[in-house]
Amino acid sequence: MDCKSALDAVQGDLTAAVEFLRKKGLADAAKKQHREAREGMVSAYIHPGAKIGVLVEVDCETDFVARTEQLQQLVRDLAMQVAATSPSYVARDDVPAAVLEKEREIYRTQMADQKKPPQVLDKIVEGKIEKFYGEQCLLEQPFIKDPSGKTAVKDLVAQATAQTGERIVVKRFARFQVGESA
Amino acid sequence: MDCKSALDAVQGDLTAAVEFLRKKGLADAAKKQHREAREGMVSAYIHPGAKIGVLVEVDCETDFVARTEQLQQLVRDLAMQVAATSPSYVARDDVPAAVLEKEREIYRTQMADQKKPPQVLDKIVEGKIEKFYGEQCLLEQPFIKDPSGKTAVKDLVAQATAQTGERIVVKRFARFQVGESA
Repeated sequence: MDCKSALDAVQGDLTAAVEFLRKKGLADAAKKQHREAREGMVSAYIHPGAKIGVLVEVDCETDFVARTEQLQQLVRDLAMQVAATSPSYVARDDVPAAVLEKEREIYRTQMADQKKPPQVLDKIVEGKIEKFYGEQCLLEQPFIKDPSGKTAVKDLVAQATAQTGERIVVKRFARFQVGESA
Repeated sequence: MDCKSALDAVQGDLTAAVEFLRKKGLADAAKKQHREAREGMVSAYIHPGAKIGVLVEVDCETDFVARTEQLQQLVRDLAMQVAATSPSYVARDDVPAAVLEKEREIYRTQMADQKKPPQVLDKIVEGKIEKFYGEQCLLEQPFIKDPSGKTAVKDLVAQATAQTGERIVVKRFARFQVGESA
């Protein structure tokens, strides 16, 4: 074997190796979505006056990441967000089907006398459901600390995932306000 | 009217007035149980390590009492108690009937082969239900800061009522622990 063919062979191996690693990398990223987030941290925010309090749990994969400043900042931001905006759910998947059906019914009743074609009506109703998600689901809300309104809370979580390389899950929150009936 | 009869008359009025105030005082104390606790405060406790967090709401009648050191100490003590003992309910009345029935069934099954008379069995089962309340209901638990085990959490609340003269209600709590399935 001459020098040229030896070099070609090495080049071929290298290409195959790079291809292998690239495919594996993509597979790892896909897998990350299914990895379990069993570590995490709990944080609280008590609004001055102590009439509103919030408890938030955010999970990740390792205790190392749970202790990073990025994760702690995320949890603090989430607790303040919940105190300010009082969402009902973490994610849109958490809204019960019965609640969505009731919302749709209300919107349809509101527009009953406008005699719009059914497909137009459906579009308007689904637009209002999107608005409902944006108000009632923590992850869909605009982040209160971004005055432009362009950052959603889920973007913060995506940033934290990118910074830490771990799956980050907003697991749950509780919000107590003195004088609420519930 | 001589001096003696004038004095007697005043004395009579005074006795009547004292009697009136005493009756009114008792009535007020009874009424206190029905007065609404619409003010209050929320407090949080995050256990070192941030793997366990607790949020507690305690209600009272006026914001003045909500700001007293007595009430704030009570809420702090309750939050730490919940973090340490992980109760499921605030009061014994909060335990659903179905849960109690299931507990009773478990105890009966455990003792099925002991052939005890029914009335003895009933007494043992009710004793175990009392133990269940003492473990699962915050107000029935022994207060963790009293090593003698003689102070129940509800005694703390009664003390706060005596100190502040207001109705004090432990309204709700939330306890998040990283790694819990719920």
